[in-house]
Amino acid sequence: MVSETSLQSCIDECTRCHAICTRTIRYCLEKSGRYADANHLRLLQDCAEICLASANFMLRSSNFHPNVCGVCAEICDRCARSCEKIGGGQDERMKECAGTCGQCSDSCQEMSVAHHLIA
Amino acid sequence: MVSETSLQSCIDECTRCHAICTRTIRYCLEKSGRYADANHLRLLQDCAEICLASANFMLRSSNFHPNVCGVCAEICDRCARSCEKIGGGQDERMKECAGTCGQCSDSCQEMSVAHHLIA
Amino acid sequence: MVSETSLQSCIDECTRCHAICTRTIRYCLEKSGRYADANHLRLLQDCAEICLASANFMLRSSNFHPNVCGVCAEICDRCARSCEKIGGGQDERMKECAGTCGQCSDSCQEMSVAHHLIA
Amino acid sequence: MVSETSLQSCIDECTRCHAICTRTIRYCLEKSGRYADANHLRLLQDCAEICLASANFMLRSSNFHPNVCGVCAEICDRCARSCEKIGGGQDERMKECAGTCGQCSDSCQEMSVAHHLIA
Repeated sequence: MVSETSLQSCIDECTRCHAICTRTIRYCLEKSGRYADANHLRLLQDCAEICLASANFMLRSSNFHPNVCGVCAEICDRCARSCEKIGGGQDERMKECAGTCGQCSDSCQEMSVAHHLIA
Repeated sequence: MVSETSLQSCIDECTRCHAICTRTIRYCLEKSGRYADANHLRLLQDCAEICLASANFMLRSSNFHPNVCGVCAEICDRCARSCEKIGGGQDERMKECAGTCGQCSDSCQEMSVAHHLIA
Repeated sequence: MVSETSLQSCIDECTRCHAICTRTIRYCLEKSGRYADANHLRLLQDCAEICLASANFMLRSSNFHPNVCGVCAEICDRCARSCEKIGGGQDERMKECAGTCGQCSDSCQEMSVAHHLIA
Repeated sequence: MVSETSLQSCIDECTRCHAICTRTIRYCLEKSGRYADANHLRLLQDCAEICLASANFMLRSSNFHPNVCGVCAEICDRCARSCEKIGGGQDERMKECAGTCGQCSDSCQEMSVAHHLIA
């Protein structure tokens, strides 16, 4: 079962991840070059949007939040890896974004698994 | 594989479903009583939000659109049944909303299955 | 001119206000009766949505953030008053929501005015 | 006063404009070069987001829809001009996006003015 604490912490992770991805889109567009890769930027948009949806489903205590969190976990993980790759382990901004996406992925994964235990 | 035609038609269904659910929330709040049931209204909010996300993922041609469409199909189906139940087969507005949610569910289900064939 | 500090604090206020309004919708639907008033709930939806847009415009450092913040300030103020009225000064949840909306309104008003000084 | 017909037509314009801007972001990222200009892409994101908010405020029949439409009119107009400039009058895709943004701007302007006559 999902505790109130882990629900609130997952909402916080999703909110943070939505915010950093939205900022990182701007950052990557300004850096241009490999940073402005179409697939990387689409992944950042996907990640920002699904994190927002996940947070909203949890804020409404929706029964479907584990389903949305499951998709969110997968997208965040992919986005984390894209940020790592684009940043090449050198760029602090990209490392921070990758870290936030990775934590959000773990937290959402936990929400999604909790669901399967109940259902 | 997903054709451009079925992709566009699924975007249209999701857009229509987002719009009618957003309107139906207002309608149900004004009718009050059983129409304003907390779970019914949350389902309408869930449905409006996930339809919008599905449409956006398809508009971006995101690789993750089948994942979001899969969740969308499930929520739309549940929302269709809630609208039918609340409307009791009498209320034309609720029947229309149920019909739109049902069609959107089918269309999203098709998108989601197409995905599993590819992956 | 707008400092980085006040921009970040306005993003935080908008994020908080979006979250509490989204929760309060659920709370009011469950309380039902005068809490489920159609205009009050629409105002909470308006407030949640415009706060999210304001936060996103600021996260993108968009030139148009003061315009969106100006509309946001007005809606938050109206929502704060609606929460106070519905809660009747007794309900701690509604007082908290009113307080958050009020602070967000002030912060967005400041952003909007800063704009007029520049333009 | 605003008729039901013009309200519905403005909802349709905003929905169309949200969709085309979302697609155009993808198109511009793939074209890269001057198409991927950071300010142009931010404008497309601003335009997609405010059009969605406008449509939602109108779908809810919110009293604040003229305020949001006013901001939307301004952003759509700026986005139309950016698309024209980037496309250089040659690119059919950018011309179509500019045309849709321009029509949406006019429609939202009308909604915004209608408001000032009432208030």
